[in-house]
Amino acid sequence: MKFARFRVDGYDYYGQVEADRLRAIQGDLFSGDYRLTGAVFPLDRVTLLPPSRPVNFWGVGENYPVHVRFRIDQMGREIEERAKRFTPWHKGVGSLIASGDTVVMPPDLKVLEYEGELCIVIGRPAYRVGKDEAPHYIFGYSVSNDISGADYRDAFMWRMKCSDTFGPVGPWIETTIDPHNLDIITRVDGREEDRGNTRDMIHDCYAIVSNISQYCTLHPGDLITTGAPGSTRPLKPGEVVEIEIPGIGVLRNPIAAAR
Amino acid sequence: MKFARFRVDGYDYYGQVEADRLRAIQGDLFSGDYRLTGAVFPLDRVTLLPPSRPVNFWGVGENYPVHVRFRIDQMGREIEERAKRFTPWHKGVGSLIASGDTVVMPPDLKVLEYEGELCIVIGRPAYRVGKDEAPHYIFGYSVSNDISGADYRDAFMWRMKCSDTFGPVGPWIETTIDPHNLDIITRVDGREEDRGNTRDMIHDCYAIVSNISQYCTLHPGDLITTGAPGSTRPLKPGEVVEIEIPGIGVLRNPIAAAR
Repeated sequence: MKFARFRVDGYDYYGQVEADRLRAIQGDLFSGDYRLTGAVFPLDRVTLLPPSRPVNFWGVGENYPVHVRFRIDQMGREIEERAKRFTPWHKGVGSLIASGDTVVMPPDLKVLEYEGELCIVIGRPAYRVGKDEAPHYIFGYSVSNDISGADYRDAFMWRMKCSDTFGPVGPWIETTIDPHNLDIITRVDGREEDRGNTRDMIHDCYAIVSNISQYCTLHPGDLITTGAPGSTRPLKPGEVVEIEIPGIGVLRNPIAAAR
Repeated sequence: MKFARFRVDGYDYYGQVEADRLRAIQGDLFSGDYRLTGAVFPLDRVTLLPPSRPVNFWGVGENYPVHVRFRIDQMGREIEERAKRFTPWHKGVGSLIASGDTVVMPPDLKVLEYEGELCIVIGRPAYRVGKDEAPHYIFGYSVSNDISGADYRDAFMWRMKCSDTFGPVGPWIETTIDPHNLDIITRVDGREEDRGNTRDMIHDCYAIVSNISQYCTLHPGDLITTGAPGSTRPLKPGEVVEIEIPGIGVLRNPIAAAR
């Protein structure tokens, strides 16, 4: 099943996706304590919001062999060392935007890059859970674009990964899908630029959830973007970037220069 | 004036501190659109909560000359390079705890360190604000203990700085105080261990708010811990660490080993 968060006439809803319509729910989506209502809206009449309101928005880097080789060629051996360990980081909840929202390039940024990724959505509080138990704590999966300001070389990536609008996630959450055999396709202005499959993850979704939860509780609605499968290239203002994961949906965001 | 967030009988409140009592408010503390109510609770009957519910919890490192020298002696010249730039990072909202809550050492951690700091509390959405305008966007100041798991050497400090319970902030927010002439005193089991003054900050509070806001919107309730003034030493389970900023209050947290 697919669940979206959306806005109509100034009110925010969670709802179930029914083909080209959204049916609002009442209650708590993540605990399962909710009911479907009679309020139904055509998809083209709503504004999609990021699919949850996370406490934390996590990123995982260097999680596919092809991407690791791409980054080693680009940035040197430090990446190789980093890729040997499990190295998550905080994407910054403030960076989160929805499908349809605009990614804005800060005035001093030269190189903005896409990274199309599978995004885990947490369903229950997870603290020190094993890899085998991890699926029980995952609510579903969405599509993310882990936008990077590549020329910001800050020690802790606060501008590179966390600037406003650098965290598109959407269009919604799919709850019934095998996360480890999904194509991830990136298109810029309709041209395919990259294609990978989640079966090539170094740390799979269950390992990621288990590993983070050994130190940091994962909360309902928390998002984890799980790494780009392949290469990337710079985006220019005016271009539109689409990340498609067949079975989940298409995350589409235009790029603009800051005014 | 002082404002706290607290829990009584399962309900959460914001309230104004009146000597040894808390008066609940109704409305939105940060916008100023609130009123005092008749509900008054003795301080010793409430459970303090972290003083706000931030979208992001920011940290700033290497922000006092004495602390920079201490870290260079300990960790080498990489710190000196890092200290030349403004380098904030995400502390992880999940790490946040209140005064009175217990800091828990993960089972595999050897060295847990305190860092007593002044904590900025944001009042209004701040995007690309100048240093001169920054005071207008600050609601007040609290006390923080930027707990570090010193032997976790992760690239992006996800365990070192962001593990559960590593972010004590409290006991409350003081809204009418000069942030740039405050003593910060750290005591362990009542013995003074460190003392500094916010006048020695490298990046002052207004520069910090202005700098972050050039890329990342600061949201009402967001917290920014502004760096430790001096040195630190390892804490042991069973010890109690207090950070006092006269004029604001005392943040007190016991240390325990994970079970």
